[in-house]
Amino acid sequence: MAEKKILLQEREIPKAWYNVLPDLPGSLPPELHPGTKKPLVPEDLLPIFPMACIEQEMSPQHRIDIPEEVLKVYTQYRPTPLRRAYRLEEAIGTSAKIYYKDESLSPPGSHKPNTAVAQAYYNKKEGVKRLATETGAGQWGSALAFACRMFGLECTIYMVGISYDQKPYRRFLAQSWGAEMFRSPSNRTEFGKKTRKEDPDCLGSLGIAISEAIEDAATHEDTKYSIGSVVNHVLLHQTIVGLEVEKQLDKVGEKPDIMIGCVGGGSNFSGFFLPFLPRKLAGENIRFIAVEPTACPSLTRGPYRYDFGDTAGTGPVVKMFTLGHSFVPPPIHAGGLRYHGDAPILCHLLKLGLIEAQAYHQKEVFDAALLFTQTEGFLPAPETAHATKAVIEEAKKAKPGTVIVFNHSGHGYFDLGAYDTYFRGKLEDYAYPQEKIEEALKSLPEVEEV
Amino acid sequence: MAEKKILLQEREIPKAWYNVLPDLPGSLPPELHPGTKKPLVPEDLLPIFPMACIEQEMSPQHRIDIPEEVLKVYTQYRPTPLRRAYRLEEAIGTSAKIYYKDESLSPPGSHKPNTAVAQAYYNKKEGVKRLATETGAGQWGSALAFACRMFGLECTIYMVGISYDQKPYRRFLAQSWGAEMFRSPSNRTEFGKKTRKEDPDCLGSLGIAISEAIEDAATHEDTKYSIGSVVNHVLLHQTIVGLEVEKQLDKVGEKPDIMIGCVGGGSNFSGFFLPFLPRKLAGENIRFIAVEPTACPSLTRGPYRYDFGDTAGTGPVVKMFTLGHSFVPPPIHAGGLRYHGDAPILCHLLKLGLIEAQAYHQKEVFDAALLFTQTEGFLPAPETAHATKAVIEEAKKAKPGTVIVFNHSGHGYFDLGAYDTYFRGKLEDYAYPQEKIEEALKSLPEVEEV
Repeated sequence: MAEKKILLQEREIPKAWYNVLPDLPGSLPPELHPGTKKPLVPEDLLPIFPMACIEQEMSPQHRIDIPEEVLKVYTQYRPTPLRRAYRLEEAIGTSAKIYYKDESLSPPGSHKPNTAVAQAYYNKKEGVKRLATETGAGQWGSALAFACRMFGLECTIYMVGISYDQKPYRRFLAQSWGAEMFRSPSNRTEFGKKTRKEDPDCLGSLGIAISEAIEDAATHEDTKYSIGSVVNHVLLHQTIVGLEVEKQLDKVGEKPDIMIGCVGGGSNFSGFFLPFLPRKLAGENIRFIAVEPTACPSLTRGPYRYDFGDTAGTGPVVKMFTLGHSFVPPPIHAGGLRYHGDAPILCHLLKLGLIEAQAYHQKEVFDAALLFTQTEGFLPAPETAHATKAVIEEAKKAKPGTVIVFNHSGHGYFDLGAYDTYFRGKLEDYAYPQEKIEEALKSLPEVEEV
Repeated sequence: MAEKKILLQEREIPKAWYNVLPDLPGSLPPELHPGTKKPLVPEDLLPIFPMACIEQEMSPQHRIDIPEEVLKVYTQYRPTPLRRAYRLEEAIGTSAKIYYKDESLSPPGSHKPNTAVAQAYYNKKEGVKRLATETGAGQWGSALAFACRMFGLECTIYMVGISYDQKPYRRFLAQSWGAEMFRSPSNRTEFGKKTRKEDPDCLGSLGIAISEAIEDAATHEDTKYSIGSVVNHVLLHQTIVGLEVEKQLDKVGEKPDIMIGCVGGGSNFSGFFLPFLPRKLAGENIRFIAVEPTACPSLTRGPYRYDFGDTAGTGPVVKMFTLGHSFVPPPIHAGGLRYHGDAPILCHLLKLGLIEAQAYHQKEVFDAALLFTQTEGFLPAPETAHATKAVIEEAKKAKPGTVIVFNHSGHGYFDLGAYDTYFRGKLEDYAYPQEKIEEALKSLPEVEEV
């Protein structure tokens, strides 16, 4: 039996990110200003992002060098292993080969620091003292806390109220890296105060928390805003994942036939497969499958429309498959996948038929998670398990020798409460009614399509 | 800067464990039968352990081959990285070199599966269907659950009542590998029933849980008992850690000057340093430092006496530095270090002056944990952080170039409640009074010393 773990030495880490923008077929619809609805210019983003990230957001270069200081932090936990899932293959009874990229070994336990570290570095370099962000269950918040600590930046996190109360562990983790955490809506921002005044018992939402973080950044000279998914430069930073996979598969002489990842905002899946997109564009037979929850079916059921990325409607307007920015997804345990839209790059590729999308219910997803845990040993996050489910389904019907690769984007150590609910048979599936989607779509901004 | 992560490829994993028994100077005091107080013979242990482990307990061989099937599971998570702690060195301002072996990347998050996997394999091979064990906070229980799942064995875990109630996450983790968990004292055993009858509100203790697990094994033909530390064969299995470290240090041309580990029962520290003991016996200048909590100061304040390994007094009687088997340690957060005695091999070496022992209070230990987290990024378990504290102290006073290596035995993802207590300034130190030790020592069994 060949080795299960394909390792790269530290010196083999990719030295540049892959920027898909110049390779994209068709033209990516521009991001629009939330007020004027005209295409964004770099200056519009300066109050919230550092110049380096704004440039990356629109860069025409194929490769963007990873700064030495970023590589120094990446190598605290990267390169990550690519593993062959022999035991899972055996349990499924497939003659396909299954590989998984293990992004769960980073200090915060997911792929999130790949962009957090880059963003913290560029902000530090441009003289920023503090980063503000929002977090739901805490994956992104804890990743940014880690990154800020590595570069000596302060970090302020607005955490969705109900998660702040119910899921304290990732909050404590972020605190252990020195971040200050506020229960959102907070008394720190005007928007937070206003929200609390209107509803003193408000449990918060990601939309409210984003608005608080953006306000914090926009109203403090030394502070910028940091975002964990969706936008182009975040996807760019995540390509370190796919670039490593490319080297690792080369080492064992394999080529991927199917690449699978879960999608919330789309950054882990995109970072994983985008470096392989040129192969498909060159005619290679390779499938890219995005997996989302049926409870939040933007890619599989949403229309391709211009919408706000944030609930409050203060951020850029982008074209994406969306359920409407006022959409409130059911309380599934894969909190990281409860987003109304998806990364514009990913949506553009879906529209062009270059990627596929599938949706699964959470019970079958937890079944898949358990099979993975009981064979491979590692407990996936509920988000990640969406990919695992799709892998199992594809492996069952695959021709012998098919190479299926997926992104094991994070561990489930902080999600054991959800597993307990599943063990007790209390997990619920949500069949999302079409009327609710229609209703939510009424909130879309009016945009003159080019 | 040289590479931070020293990796071994899967094929480089050591193929045999190192057995220290034939190399031990002096003669290791024999283990005694709890009833007769005469030296144990292999048959005495057969009702609870498989023959292969009993043979290892007394083996005269220097190297014991690791079975192929065990290596196959080891390589699900091994070899583990050895990391150079550049950032920690910089923060301390030391010119010593600090390396740490990262055992936190295993599926259960600690070094514990190294022996769990071996024990599960040998039991499976000898026809055993089920393993029973006890667990406190759950590190050991979850590791055995993982190992049993890998070999298709059933697993029954008696979990200390108060931990069962207050620390459910590691319980859910064990359940995700299919283990059945009972709150101890349970209604499954005579001893459990008796205990509950006497005290219906009993919160349990490790001693009670051990007694339940041993009774379960002894009263079921198809069931054996499995233990996570203290005994010789557990230390043997853990030497995979030190043997890997040896290869990794060789790769970078380093020799350790100081090796440090935390000690509860003694298995992680012993597995880490024992392969280096022959160097010291051959005259090399190398220090081995065991670190324990001041709240449970067996190595630093206990006398070297024969005592029961378990509270109920049903297991073997062994010679060790002990606080007495009736000793109930204060409720420090490093639950894995709350053991009244230590591994006989380790105690023998301490008695001979071949190793040193140090004790630290938990507040200073958490300070060290936080410094490590904020520099290296990884959050250590409170147990592990005892080693980290000693490393920092040694590094501060070390000569330039001194090579300090320690065992990062587990992560603290499941201990964030304890970190929160620390952040809130609510952590307490315990200065253990001499009278309590004197009192506990009255419970020592009467043994005729040879």
